[in-house]
Amino acid sequence: MKAEIITIGDELLIGQVIDTNSAWIGQRLTEVGIQLYQRTACGDNRKQILDSLHDAELRADIIILTGGLGPTNDDITKATLCEYFNTTLIENKIVKDWVCKIFNNKNLPMLESNLLQAMVPLNCEILFNRTGTAPGMWFNENNKIFISLPGVPFEMKTIFDEEVLPRIKQKFSLPSIFNRTINTVSIGESFLADKIKYIEDELPSHIKLAYLPSVNMVRLRLSAFGENKSLLEKEVNVFAEKIYFEIAEYIYGEGNDSLANSVGKLLMQNNKTVATAESCSGGYIAHQLTSVAGSSKFYLGSIIAYSYAIKESELGVSKNVLNTLGAVSEECVVQMAEGIFKKFNVDYAISASGIAGPDGGTNEKPVGTVWIAIATKEKTITKKSNFGENREYNIQKTSIVALDMLRKILLEL
Amino acid sequence: MKAEIITIGDELLIGQVIDTNSAWIGQRLTEVGIQLYQRTACGDNRKQILDSLHDAELRADIIILTGGLGPTNDDITKATLCEYFNTTLIENKIVKDWVCKIFNNKNLPMLESNLLQAMVPLNCEILFNRTGTAPGMWFNENNKIFISLPGVPFEMKTIFDEEVLPRIKQKFSLPSIFNRTINTVSIGESFLADKIKYIEDELPSHIKLAYLPSVNMVRLRLSAFGENKSLLEKEVNVFAEKIYFEIAEYIYGEGNDSLANSVGKLLMQNNKTVATAESCSGGYIAHQLTSVAGSSKFYLGSIIAYSYAIKESELGVSKNVLNTLGAVSEECVVQMAEGIFKKFNVDYAISASGIAGPDGGTNEKPVGTVWIAIATKEKTITKKSNFGENREYNIQKTSIVALDMLRKILLEL
Repeated sequence: MKAEIITIGDELLIGQVIDTNSAWIGQRLTEVGIQLYQRTACGDNRKQILDSLHDAELRADIIILTGGLGPTNDDITKATLCEYFNTTLIENKIVKDWVCKIFNNKNLPMLESNLLQAMVPLNCEILFNRTGTAPGMWFNENNKIFISLPGVPFEMKTIFDEEVLPRIKQKFSLPSIFNRTINTVSIGESFLADKIKYIEDELPSHIKLAYLPSVNMVRLRLSAFGENKSLLEKEVNVFAEKIYFEIAEYIYGEGNDSLANSVGKLLMQNNKTVATAESCSGGYIAHQLTSVAGSSKFYLGSIIAYSYAIKESELGVSKNVLNTLGAVSEECVVQMAEGIFKKFNVDYAISASGIAGPDGGTNEKPVGTVWIAIATKEKTITKKSNFGENREYNIQKTSIVALDMLRKILLEL
Repeated sequence: MKAEIITIGDELLIGQVIDTNSAWIGQRLTEVGIQLYQRTACGDNRKQILDSLHDAELRADIIILTGGLGPTNDDITKATLCEYFNTTLIENKIVKDWVCKIFNNKNLPMLESNLLQAMVPLNCEILFNRTGTAPGMWFNENNKIFISLPGVPFEMKTIFDEEVLPRIKQKFSLPSIFNRTINTVSIGESFLADKIKYIEDELPSHIKLAYLPSVNMVRLRLSAFGENKSLLEKEVNVFAEKIYFEIAEYIYGEGNDSLANSVGKLLMQNNKTVATAESCSGGYIAHQLTSVAGSSKFYLGSIIAYSYAIKESELGVSKNVLNTLGAVSEECVVQMAEGIFKKFNVDYAISASGIAGPDGGTNEKPVGTVWIAIATKEKTITKKSNFGENREYNIQKTSIVALDMLRKILLEL
């Protein structure tokens, strides 16, 4: 069973709007075992929409269109669908009553353009839109299903879940799909691939492994396609266990877990607290930790010490270290971490000091040089990295490496 | 001049990754006067990629591919391009040396898969990737340009700006375009549209106005198309001046200026310093300020006080205020701002305390309630907001409103 999405709107092409609808629909389709084969974005242009419909119909069983259903002149999806199916618009009474009701309830005058929302192609079944005025439409033509939905994400999602999915499940007998995503940190894509190559080679053809890389992280997705979902789940889990066995130390979570989320869970499980003393990362590690819902249970606070004076007065870094070794030194981050550890009376303290760039580098300490320390009751560990020339990257990588160091301590890795 | 984008990767179709690359490329192309005609997303699948290349070549002059250039088995873009152009892969010495250098600098062993990054189709010109191992590729075939770029957004953007755009500008005689983007904050899109409607109505047909909204911000882009760039610039500037006249107080900058950047510039111009005392924003305001290159000139440091104890001990918030009015109160943010103002001896201090959610709301103080204060030598001003239920949004909006309050003080608005 194959589906395609056609998104309609000039704003998508000139980059004014990022298309989040397609990813959302793709997730929903994947969950019910429909393969999204291709996605096409085209402008508010009659010929482009007709061509896209024609091409998609040749490849897919279900064609989903979003956008172009508004009341203004640039919205031409309905007229173009009429042309494609060689039919005309008629007024739909249910939609008309609904639109009138919305305007009455808001005490707003009706414009003629609003009533046009009740005009729909003769050959469609209406998909009721309880969150707006533009109805969704379901066409069953040439043994294919065409679905036209509004582009407003909230309206599209409501109609999709309430009207589209139940009809799809009723009409088609769908295959099963099982997905499991394993999130890794601090290991490059190629090293990871090298370590688990033998597992990848063992995969049967109905199970696929994908590498999804981002800054200092790679997510591994196992997807199985077949008949029996619980069997697929068992099969995938066997391979997931093998992956765990091979690279356990690099795995911080699964699915939607963020690294900070996983570190937060470990802290809460152990009833422990954390604080940060940040220089080059400028509050970004604190931000990552406090992005976790419920972080007040494990996070007490931080000191961001950008200046020498604040490193001295608030964190107790010695003037001697600052003047002889500088702020970007092992001794400085050790004193920062131990300073905040004592001051805030936490179980773990993270510190970071480096040269984020673009300026401030020297031959000895080029831009990207970052020292990180973690203080615990027993000891303080440190790590020196060079993250390269990009300021934004340096800040992000500092945070990831620091949180991963704490994760390893919490797991005694 | 028409372009198309083909994005490659199963992760885009199953919705695991939202495609932000296409919108970014669409913006860049629009800025230089190239029409993005269509976008296609296809899987890591040889036939789909070949079909998409074939179809795009029939419609467009420039075909841009992103993704599928990693070192792992699921990445098949290079092999498929070879098949499409009926050529083979050869080793490129510049890329090989670069990949070796990266691994040497990191003291990491080279894997065979890493060296595969240096294998490129015989008929391509290399687009150097100084931020990663996968090079971009430029093909001039059948009187069309094909460009293949890595899918990692940071790498794609760097190669596009440094290698692709200069080549496109050299190869094609593009129409003249002049863009000017005015960045506004703290005014909604419809209010903005209402205030400047009469200016919009006066625009000649070759000048377009676009509204680019994001969280609490709207950017207004004036784009003029024609022959004579300096004439276009003069025309656009006339309308920009009219917009400034109407909404000056909401304009914080132009083009790529971030709000923090603009605030930083104002602080530096006045030789002033700032610190933050953050609760609900959890270091995000500090992160915004320290994301500005050169921020050590105006930013000294911050205290992130998540717990009551740290609000008391580090910022001098009174136990009485915390116990009677709570941390989310005007009195608390005043004491936080004045506490850090004195402690760090700065010219301006920002504080914020609120309920970011998802839990912790009450009838009196629902999730999204945020108090912000700015302390100066003369006075401390405060503002209460309700930003709604989304934690991520609440943190972002707190930062934007706080920085905008400081901006207005610095400009005496």
